[in-house]
Amino acid sequence: MPSYRAPVEDVVFLLNDVLGFHRHDNLPGFADASADVVEAVLNEGGKLAAEVLAPVNLSGDQEGCTRHEDGRVTTPKGFQEAYTAYAAGGWMGLSVPEEYGGQGLPHVLNTAIQEFASGANLALGMYPGLTQGAIAALLVHGSEEQKRTYLPKMVEGAWTGTMNLTEPHCGTDLGLLKTKAVRNADGSYSLTGTKIFISAGEHDLSENIVHLVIARIEGAPAGTKGISLFVVPKFLVNADGSLGERNGVSCGSLEHKMGIHGNATCVMNYDGAKGWLVGEENRGLNAMFVMMNEARLAVGVQGLGQSEVAYQNAVAYAKERLQGRALTGPKAPDKAADPIIVHPDVRRTLMQIRAFNEAARALILWTALQSDIAHRSQDAGERRGAEDLLGLLTPVVKGVLTDRGFANAVEAQQMFGGHGYIEEWGMSQFVRDARIAMIYEGANGIQAMDLIGRKLPKDGGRAMMLFLGEVQTFIKDHAETEAMKPYTGPLQAALNDLQGAVMWLMQNAMAKPDHAGAGATDTMHLLGLVALGYMWARIAKAALDKAGDPRMEAKLVTGRFFMERMLPETALRLTRIKAGADTTMALAAEAF
Amino acid sequence: MPSYRAPVEDVVFLLNDVLGFHRHDNLPGFADASADVVEAVLNEGGKLAAEVLAPVNLSGDQEGCTRHEDGRVTTPKGFQEAYTAYAAGGWMGLSVPEEYGGQGLPHVLNTAIQEFASGANLALGMYPGLTQGAIAALLVHGSEEQKRTYLPKMVEGAWTGTMNLTEPHCGTDLGLLKTKAVRNADGSYSLTGTKIFISAGEHDLSENIVHLVIARIEGAPAGTKGISLFVVPKFLVNADGSLGERNGVSCGSLEHKMGIHGNATCVMNYDGAKGWLVGEENRGLNAMFVMMNEARLAVGVQGLGQSEVAYQNAVAYAKERLQGRALTGPKAPDKAADPIIVHPDVRRTLMQIRAFNEAARALILWTALQSDIAHRSQDAGERRGAEDLLGLLTPVVKGVLTDRGFANAVEAQQMFGGHGYIEEWGMSQFVRDARIAMIYEGANGIQAMDLIGRKLPKDGGRAMMLFLGEVQTFIKDHAETEAMKPYTGPLQAALNDLQGAVMWLMQNAMAKPDHAGAGATDTMHLLGLVALGYMWARIAKAALDKAGDPRMEAKLVTGRFFMERMLPETALRLTRIKAGADTTMALAAEAF
Repeated sequence: MPSYRAPVEDVVFLLNDVLGFHRHDNLPGFADASADVVEAVLNEGGKLAAEVLAPVNLSGDQEGCTRHEDGRVTTPKGFQEAYTAYAAGGWMGLSVPEEYGGQGLPHVLNTAIQEFASGANLALGMYPGLTQGAIAALLVHGSEEQKRTYLPKMVEGAWTGTMNLTEPHCGTDLGLLKTKAVRNADGSYSLTGTKIFISAGEHDLSENIVHLVIARIEGAPAGTKGISLFVVPKFLVNADGSLGERNGVSCGSLEHKMGIHGNATCVMNYDGAKGWLVGEENRGLNAMFVMMNEARLAVGVQGLGQSEVAYQNAVAYAKERLQGRALTGPKAPDKAADPIIVHPDVRRTLMQIRAFNEAARALILWTALQSDIAHRSQDAGERRGAEDLLGLLTPVVKGVLTDRGFANAVEAQQMFGGHGYIEEWGMSQFVRDARIAMIYEGANGIQAMDLIGRKLPKDGGRAMMLFLGEVQTFIKDHAETEAMKPYTGPLQAALNDLQGAVMWLMQNAMAKPDHAGAGATDTMHLLGLVALGYMWARIAKAALDKAGDPRMEAKLVTGRFFMERMLPETALRLTRIKAGADTTMALAAEAF
Repeated sequence: MPSYRAPVEDVVFLLNDVLGFHRHDNLPGFADASADVVEAVLNEGGKLAAEVLAPVNLSGDQEGCTRHEDGRVTTPKGFQEAYTAYAAGGWMGLSVPEEYGGQGLPHVLNTAIQEFASGANLALGMYPGLTQGAIAALLVHGSEEQKRTYLPKMVEGAWTGTMNLTEPHCGTDLGLLKTKAVRNADGSYSLTGTKIFISAGEHDLSENIVHLVIARIEGAPAGTKGISLFVVPKFLVNADGSLGERNGVSCGSLEHKMGIHGNATCVMNYDGAKGWLVGEENRGLNAMFVMMNEARLAVGVQGLGQSEVAYQNAVAYAKERLQGRALTGPKAPDKAADPIIVHPDVRRTLMQIRAFNEAARALILWTALQSDIAHRSQDAGERRGAEDLLGLLTPVVKGVLTDRGFANAVEAQQMFGGHGYIEEWGMSQFVRDARIAMIYEGANGIQAMDLIGRKLPKDGGRAMMLFLGEVQTFIKDHAETEAMKPYTGPLQAALNDLQGAVMWLMQNAMAKPDHAGAGATDTMHLLGLVALGYMWARIAKAALDKAGDPRMEAKLVTGRFFMERMLPETALRLTRIKAGADTTMALAAEAF
């Protein structure tokens, strides 16, 4: 059976030595997160992931969720106990303000725990993941009464949350949505319509389910300007906070999916269900975006989580499986054959995954730190910079980390030969589970369009200029250090490619937007590569400062591997971007 | 439900206009394959694939195979009828010599039919596919008596074949195998041992199953030099050809796999099963390689087959699904939204798959043509050249076409958004089925090692020199034609990259074999890219000769897309190869 070990040491190193976590002790919540607290939190979270969540991952995939005739949905054996342990540990509210029952710790810590949970058991981790997204939306857009009604229960894990956007005919293009809200005399609304692909829409893990639903109020404008957000609890909540009658929302069926079988993906029927407006009328998309941005980062984290667990299991297999002899002569002459980790092509594969994982973890934590700064800093300039970086990096973290996370799960599966294709080994599950992360919360092509169409041009390209400037400054500061040259040299080349792409887009895509569209995915990956390369350069700097530690020596080698073999992909991405849209768009639709 | 349409027109164009099929009319079997016959055969095969095999693909995945308590295995509903139609059509023996009941037509035609079958229904197509491999091994290494006993029944499809190599502890490293053969007084052998991952090992499609099994004869040397090949029928065959008693071979269990659920993947127990030596004692691997080379090409074809069917369904969806508006203004103003094929990122995806598929089809047919020439030509020099190219290209076709075939199935699935993740849409099945092709018949890393360790250095690199020379000559012959420049220019750059890689490997890998190992996969993909680029250049030449035909115009655009966006990947591959093994191999195994 596959296993999982949370990379606690790596997170601690990244926070303390690479990202300067404690430089932010002036921010609310950070002072409470002393070095000891941080390590204790990570160790506990890691233990929960490895010992409670991971053991029911494979069995959860094999059993899946069940919808009963009365519409109830039950989760796989062991999920209730594991979820209860998660909730009891206070993990849901780790970074939620204390006034709603949370611990008020930095979001960056919560992000590390999200990696552990989604590496150990993606399907199970989604239940609290969606709840945290719903909490975030209510925190920002909910009325004081809504916050008091829902947040404490959600934070303690007694109630879970969902996000209801998609309808059968519309996913990306939410302006087409049909779910209708009619205003009642008491100020509530009655919602009617069908939502699909609703993760955790119905299940047996919590007493109540708090659905956040977008719908169109009768008479509202067509398109995205007529969308409002509602909170629709499965059970209505009485004035005293106790649960009242069952609301008119139910699970019509479960989807039969490629993976995440342990998560209940529901068709939800709203049949005059009672809901309350969250935020302003017709401004629902804005409110939903809070939740979505949070969710997009969390999905990027899932890409890393699956890549990491697949890597760990591939390493264990590569050390154990005996097959063939090393090209340089037997390494285990007393055995029938050498372990396959001696083979260069196996090494190459493992190095490639590892070189991604370690930088991706840094990138995620760095991005989450921007989120903390953006939400907690007193300094308007600091906030603005952090918001800019957060906005710019969110689609990159979501798109690049899930594309590569999936590809890495596939590569790790490949190490197992035929055994990788057999379900009992668990590698197939990692691939099937990782696949969803490229799709949900906006398919990766949409992330690329968000980057190129919104985030890049916003405020005259301010965010990108900030990012380019930061990387350039780092290179300048360290380019003269001999030991840093294997890192700063390739990073400079990659940065030049990124600058070249931005320049080309500025000169060509304004007049012809298709040039931007045709280069969107390549631009997203190009920026992702540079961001990962920048993380490696910062990791190398920190590792050199701690020279002599074998873990740090391994970092330096892994970083060089990234620089030599992976970062040069930027040149190919730039070539593709500069090819423009002409050939891509030349054929008539009928020619396909 | 997904659908499939066989690309008959494209095969006809490639054979007639690009590959000069009819220049080989002097070869046995080619004269019978007049233009009319070829078209008729392809049309019939295409009809079978689309109308008989494809309709039971999704249902076969959902139902899977069942092993009953008595050891019998039944295939999904509809598989028997579909297989019977396949066999009745004479498809099994399309290119088998007439003396054994075949039609003696060129193998290249059989290869086109294999693409249709594996695109329409991979799991079902494997049953005849393995039978054809077993037929090939018996044709080359079987005794006259064995051929007479088994081939006619296998050619008519009444009996099917399998290939038994893998054991629980050995797949790639067959020298470790333990299955034992003890010689009986009557000249037969008794085989005892366990084989795993045996595709089509037991099922209800045929009266008898002819297992080709490798085992070690008692007292034979250890390692690969003590391996012999045996034919072990499920039912012993009486002297009059009728079926006799049940042999001591049975299916112990079915594997629970990620995909190809309709194919019975068996653990096979040999319990003193009666078998007969095929070829010479201790020369079993040589005999098995005949089957394996044939099978490797067929698996490459599967990669294309899955890429093609996934593409066709993605195109249909992209033309139908309404979501968002074109960046250049509404294209379907009368509808609620434009079909997503208007979006450049969707276009890019479809173009990328299409640009691969059309060149991959050419490459497969070209390679199969080398097989025909190698086996049928009277001219020793012509035979030698064809054998060289066939040997060189076999691992490339297997490794590159299945890596890209899978990646393309994933990209096609991505077009569907959330629907792509739901099993009923069928896209998940294409991804899960395509995944096996990267693994079986030698995982793709093994293909890369075969290329770099055996095929490249063989005969002083003669095969590679032949390939490089042929491509270079083509470029020289057409570089001055203005309309060919968009193709010959990029191809020359890619060819230079390939030559650079070969040069670097010659200078560095002799002294340090790890350099070859660390660059093996990149070398395989680099050669694959150049081979595909060469195919596009030849297609462009043929298309220019038929200018004015809209299908040809589409070819010219698609080929340009390949040259602008896909072929430049060769530079990245070269960079990686030249990075060598030092960083890749630097860490101790314990550091992972």
